[in-house]
Amino acid sequence: MVFEITNEFLENLTSLIKANNEKAITKLFKEVHYADVAEVLDEVNFEEAIYIIKLLDSEKTSEILTELEDDIREKILKNLSAQEIADEVGEMDTDDAADIIGELSEERQERVIKAIDDDELAADIKELLSYGEDTAGALMAKELVKVYETWTVAGCMRRIRGQAKDVTRVHSIYVVDKEDKLVGRLSLKDLIIAKSEQHIADILKVKVDAVNVNEDDEEVAKIMAKYDLEAIPVVDDNNVLLGRITIDDIVDVLKEEADKDYQMAAGLTQDVDSDDSILDLTKARLPWLFLGLIGGIGAFIIMEGFQGVFEKYASLFFFTPLIAAMAGNVGVQSSAIIVQGLANDDVKGSINSRLIKEMLLAALNGIILAIFLFLFVWIYEGKINTALAISSSLVIVIIVAGLIGTFVPLFLDKRGIDPAIATGPFITTSNDIFGILIYFMIAKMILGI
Amino acid sequence: MVFEITNEFLENLTSLIKANNEKAITKLFKEVHYADVAEVLDEVNFEEAIYIIKLLDSEKTSEILTELEDDIREKILKNLSAQEIADEVGEMDTDDAADIIGELSEERQERVIKAIDDDELAADIKELLSYGEDTAGALMAKELVKVYETWTVAGCMRRIRGQAKDVTRVHSIYVVDKEDKLVGRLSLKDLIIAKSEQHIADILKVKVDAVNVNEDDEEVAKIMAKYDLEAIPVVDDNNVLLGRITIDDIVDVLKEEADKDYQMAAGLTQDVDSDDSILDLTKARLPWLFLGLIGGIGAFIIMEGFQGVFEKYASLFFFTPLIAAMAGNVGVQSSAIIVQGLANDDVKGSINSRLIKEMLLAALNGIILAIFLFLFVWIYEGKINTALAISSSLVIVIIVAGLIGTFVPLFLDKRGIDPAIATGPFITTSNDIFGILIYFMIAKMILGI
Repeated sequence: MVFEITNEFLENLTSLIKANNEKAITKLFKEVHYADVAEVLDEVNFEEAIYIIKLLDSEKTSEILTELEDDIREKILKNLSAQEIADEVGEMDTDDAADIIGELSEERQERVIKAIDDDELAADIKELLSYGEDTAGALMAKELVKVYETWTVAGCMRRIRGQAKDVTRVHSIYVVDKEDKLVGRLSLKDLIIAKSEQHIADILKVKVDAVNVNEDDEEVAKIMAKYDLEAIPVVDDNNVLLGRITIDDIVDVLKEEADKDYQMAAGLTQDVDSDDSILDLTKARLPWLFLGLIGGIGAFIIMEGFQGVFEKYASLFFFTPLIAAMAGNVGVQSSAIIVQGLANDDVKGSINSRLIKEMLLAALNGIILAIFLFLFVWIYEGKINTALAISSSLVIVIIVAGLIGTFVPLFLDKRGIDPAIATGPFITTSNDIFGILIYFMIAKMILGI
Repeated sequence: MVFEITNEFLENLTSLIKANNEKAITKLFKEVHYADVAEVLDEVNFEEAIYIIKLLDSEKTSEILTELEDDIREKILKNLSAQEIADEVGEMDTDDAADIIGELSEERQERVIKAIDDDELAADIKELLSYGEDTAGALMAKELVKVYETWTVAGCMRRIRGQAKDVTRVHSIYVVDKEDKLVGRLSLKDLIIAKSEQHIADILKVKVDAVNVNEDDEEVAKIMAKYDLEAIPVVDDNNVLLGRITIDDIVDVLKEEADKDYQMAAGLTQDVDSDDSILDLTKARLPWLFLGLIGGIGAFIIMEGFQGVFEKYASLFFFTPLIAAMAGNVGVQSSAIIVQGLANDDVKGSINSRLIKEMLLAALNGIILAIFLFLFVWIYEGKINTALAISSSLVIVIIVAGLIGTFVPLFLDKRGIDPAIATGPFITTSNDIFGILIYFMIAKMILGI
């Protein structure tokens, strides 16, 4: 069932475009899902993409536009007139329409909204654009099926036939009172099973989960995932029904969130694809590398300070990469567990109890690893003192690294900063420096230099 | 709307349990969503959890059981008889029932299935248990609304009233021919809008996405996310309709997958929560740390081999943490981009073209960083030769690190191994060793030692 973009398909497409064979191209895309057409457009060159977008009818292209990669969509929108964009968004659900218009400059936004024929749609889009980024309001669509509690089942069915045409999927029917305040919900199933003369007020379910329009979108995603909801109504502070969020939007939020955390942990400062330009990839990669460079220079200065130790205990220096690596790895592990725990809301207890647990854990890991290292150095170098100094400092370094890795994300979270920033290069770099400093200090002390 | 577990709530609950006040406890949980009850059970001690499970009625506890954390559910199931478990799963959807029974030992599985009253349910569960882990079959539920193409709309509505009672949410109505082969689908909306004397064959949509029962679950997740599907029918090789997968199960697959990749990148070998025991956390953390230790010992041996260089060029040694950190960071960045690209199916082109792009990218990053490092060493140490040697080797080290980070996940993926394993400590450790070796070799060459 999966459509595959083959080289033959692309070659065929290119030659049809060159021949300006509109009929054949329209036919070629007729049975192709819009998500697949979007992938084709991501592949072909820009002129070809514009050609195809202008050729296909707006019912299809509007869906394609919502699926395109951001940078390609941006380029295509630049090449469409305000009227052409207005025609496209006229075919979209309000949430998609608002997302696309939101990507334009303010001045173009106004021109496009003015060019929309349907006044109600224009008003809906304006409303959606007014909500803050990453809020429930910015995620919701205005399309929903709404009935008044005073209606009968038969009257309700009649009216729903009208409303449902605009709604791609009817998850729930929302019941409101005369002030448009949300009072309950119904499923289509409830309605089909009910007798036609019953009143909505008698069959509605009063328990209905709703989110406030200013709720954070990640929080909405958490609620929907936890309670297995497929749609959730959005209300204002007075419980007036404003819109609804469907699970497919939440899937996107979850994916974006996961990608962001993963990239943060890997030391990438912005959302990049492997297909982005070298310049974009450099911009995403260089900042954290630069931090690593500064950290490395810090480590250099520390080691230079201990230069005098070299003559007698040269091997101490040869273990610095090991110490730095262990400090970095332990730090990343413990910060990742905290970051993930915070994201899933299962970090319980006080910061202190967390730190005590991490200390025990790091000590346990550290001692196991240190015993191994001790045996290696002792057997390989034959110096029990050096072996003892290096392995004991390893234990302390691991404990400190674990504590830093645990404390920093908890601290950031308490201060309202995204703790995910504390994983990856940030923790690796700071732990490298602290690790090496502690290592030389402890080793020097134990060896009595 | 969100239920919060407060200390007062827990204290109140504990004292009610002590007083054996069943009525008050039942009342306490009456309005609480099963997902929230599950969270309460994750918090209280084990005897209290068992007490609550046995007290509440099985319609509610069956839902609670599906939401509990694995380790707690395992303990609770151990304390229930086969008959008690059979009663619980009797209330569940078939997919949840199969998941829970699948967690039991084979011998207990059989006893529980025997204890299920409903023969059809028992057969369904047996069938679901027969599909391989991580396949569409293991994910699907048997509950769905199925109609034959020869029926009329009116007859269909009548029968759906019966079928729909067992189905939590009717996403699509699947249309089959007389051999139960999937031929199309309908929405409830289509049915409501149609005239009652029409035949299903005349109003069905023939385009229906379906997945094979042996399809990989991550692939199913990708398809559903890409095409914005809320449910997808599952068929066997002969296109016979077997079950359906709903989007809420996919949300779980996506979350698990994202968590797994994140933990892999952070150097955790198994799925752990911050609340797991120190022993579990140690088991998850120690393996990669041990790898890091081995890598560190490798770096030690390499550096010892270059010991002779120290007298004249001591500062070379002080830059090894910097070199190792940069090699590690670059490796993690490039492997993370590839791993994520592979997961999102947007790594296109040959391995060679990827490697060339990475080489250019790493060279660009490397040169920018090397210029900075050159200036620092030149100014700080006053030796232009050393500065040149260290900074040129940094460029080479970064390029090699980028190539390793790009090649390893691509290679693993080609061999059918999860490329996510190549991020984090694996790439850091191997790049540490290669980085330090290359660094000393190049520096020695440039300095003519």
